Amino acid sequence: MGITREHCAGLDAADALASARDRFILPAGVIYLDGNSLGPLAKSVAPRLRQAVEQEWGDGLIRSWNDAGWIDAPRRVARRIAPLIGADADEVIVADSTSVNLFKLLAAALRLKPARRVILTEADNFPTDLYIMQGIADLSGAEVRYAGPEPGALMAALDGDVAVLALTHVNYKSGLIHPMRELSAAAHAAGALALWDLSHSAGSVELDVAQDGADLAAGCGYKYLNGGPGAPAYAYVAKRHQAQLRQPLSGWFGHAQPFAFARDFEPAAGMQRMLSGTPPVLALIALEAALEAFDGIDLAALRRKGRALGDLFIALVDEKLADTAVRVASPRDAVVRGSQVSLSHAQGYAVMQALIARGVIGDFRAPDLMRFGFAPLYLRYVDIFDTVDALAGVLAGGEWMRPEFSARKAAT
Amino acid sequence: MGITREHCAGLDAADALASARDRFILPAGVIYLDGNSLGPLAKSVAPRLRQAVEQEWGDGLIRSWNDAGWIDAPRRVARRIAPLIGADADEVIVADSTSVNLFKLLAAALRLKPARRVILTEADNFPTDLYIMQGIADLSGAEVRYAGPEPGALMAALDGDVAVLALTHVNYKSGLIHPMRELSAAAHAAGALALWDLSHSAGSVELDVAQDGADLAAGCGYKYLNGGPGAPAYAYVAKRHQAQLRQPLSGWFGHAQPFAFARDFEPAAGMQRMLSGTPPVLALIALEAALEAFDGIDLAALRRKGRALGDLFIALVDEKLADTAVRVASPRDAVVRGSQVSLSHAQGYAVMQALIARGVIGDFRAPDLMRFGFAPLYLRYVDIFDTVDALAGVLAGGEWMRPEFSARKAAT
Repeated sequence: MGITREHCAGLDAADALASARDRFILPAGVIYLDGNSLGPLAKSVAPRLRQAVEQEWGDGLIRSWNDAGWIDAPRRVARRIAPLIGADADEVIVADSTSVNLFKLLAAALRLKPARRVILTEADNFPTDLYIMQGIADLSGAEVRYAGPEPGALMAALDGDVAVLALTHVNYKSGLIHPMRELSAAAHAAGALALWDLSHSAGSVELDVAQDGADLAAGCGYKYLNGGPGAPAYAYVAKRHQAQLRQPLSGWFGHAQPFAFARDFEPAAGMQRMLSGTPPVLALIALEAALEAFDGIDLAALRRKGRALGDLFIALVDEKLADTAVRVASPRDAVVRGSQVSLSHAQGYAVMQALIARGVIGDFRAPDLMRFGFAPLYLRYVDIFDTVDALAGVLAGGEWMRPEFSARKAAT
Repeated sequence: MGITREHCAGLDAADALASARDRFILPAGVIYLDGNSLGPLAKSVAPRLRQAVEQEWGDGLIRSWNDAGWIDAPRRVARRIAPLIGADADEVIVADSTSVNLFKLLAAALRLKPARRVILTEADNFPTDLYIMQGIADLSGAEVRYAGPEPGALMAALDGDVAVLALTHVNYKSGLIHPMRELSAAAHAAGALALWDLSHSAGSVELDVAQDGADLAAGCGYKYLNGGPGAPAYAYVAKRHQAQLRQPLSGWFGHAQPFAFARDFEPAAGMQRMLSGTPPVLALIALEAALEAFDGIDLAALRRKGRALGDLFIALVDEKLADTAVRVASPRDAVVRGSQVSLSHAQGYAVMQALIARGVIGDFRAPDLMRFGFAPLYLRYVDIFDTVDALAGVLAGGEWMRPEFSARKAAT
């Protein structure tokens, strides 16, 4: 007698976070396990955005920069993100994309360590992190060094040439969590800075950038933070580095007095110097409204639920899919696993398409990984049961072999 | 007997572009002369954005990257902007902010001219252009040289060290138009590239970047293009430079195969390599809908109307404000004037605040300029009459001296 749906329903009934699901609009007939790629629409977003468009922009026009507080939006939204990553409000700003913020932070890090020219990372880092490192290396004469992913291998590569150790906290494919505190400490011991990409962590995994020694960090607004497709990203700079920090995308919103229209750039105090061009107001407001879904949420309980959802998924896979070609490709130990589990299958793309056709939405990462994200804010234990049940059905019946499931789409 | 309101109403009755005003939502009791800073809300925007939020994001979730065409939005919106600047569709892409795009283009220009290290510009360029130049100079060892603003002075400064001449086509304060064709040709004759910021031109001034020899260009989505506060910007690269172009903000959306998740960056073909991070989908869709307001508009007629509105404004100022301290601070020759006229007044800030209190919205630029933007797509000749009438009233009655008009706001 294995795990039953009734057992899962019992877990939902006892779940103190269960009511947070009501803060989202989730389409009927869909189990959404891709919130680690694009979070769903919170109920607070559409009305707030309509107000911003119709009243603030439509009626207020240019006056809304002051009267509706648009000018403060990058800092205001940052105040909502700061507690999710363990930062103080004045250590975070919302701006641009994760890629652009990584560029700013890497350039700033190289400048803080002028005698050193190496960016150390792991080859399995998220591609945009790698590409941005390569872009800045190409521009500035820095070098990208690859090591790891094991902490020991990364630590061994931390020599006197390394200016910054730059890693994504939760690996986007495997879900493996890098030990932030140990690796930051090792970077510091080697005289380097530690830069963390929190895109696959914030909103699902407990983070304490201050206690864990992060010097710099960036992250995405559209995954677990549910800010909408291409939502603005955020940047974190520990207070101890802010006064020295210079970033080269020094646009007018990063100026000490943007509306003085002076000829020479003078960086604003604090995190505002991380801004570049005019902030994307409508997108900031959508993200701000989305973040209300975290109001009053116990982050430790959220993390516990995320782990429990992943553990349940793996237990169900072990029980129901033991005879299939599916293998668990994420850590089995929830302590070192983000809120996602990947399964490998040689025909993973087609299997995932067949699952999606059944309304169970995860995604696929080459060469063979089916990714299932378990956003603890809106997922139920019964969703996990139903997912593995659907996967068993897709595999048992050979449903995934239908020709329509093998044609690749541009993006997932 | 001077210019009468009836005369202006007659001009409106004869205006072939008059009906385009119906494409916008303009608040009652407001004359909006700040569309050169933030364009108003087109009627097409709110319904389209609501659909994108509620159906595409809410129901479609991650599937909308393919099914709703989000993945193509940067190129699709670019196809609407290309004819407004005289470019081919495959020479434009929409991404990031103007500041960030300027950084990419300046870095690319310096790389295309590796033996040269000077960025030549005018000290009165829009500040974010200057700050971004200073940022990249600081990072890469390039030098920013200031000359002009007269074309002759700029040309004289074009020596063999200049990699790129980087100018804003229409000066944000005076409205003066730089001669793009002559200056681009001079840059080429000196072995340099010509980069143009079109933020204060596109959508109000005829542009032909191809014929006028622009190598690179960038521009803003939220001024005359009416894309909303902080709307995405665009970048232009002449086809002849695209294959060689490398820009350092090489994020995953600029990769030849973003969803192959390869370790090493390989630039996408054509303009897609100008992309960096995940595109801001909701903001792109708002801009796309706003650009529908240009459907079927004769751009030559639009430019003629813009000139006529400015000429009318200056004639009315000459007639009605001759006895005041107000002076015309823009070119009187409409051929070299963008769709804006600035008036100087020592107490310009307070005068503008008093005007705004009467519902006539322009803006102020230090030290003493009141800016009036004449977006020809939605303004009427009677609006110009009423504006000067209101200004005469504000000045004659000493209305601007009221204390509430002198307190500075954070932004305008």
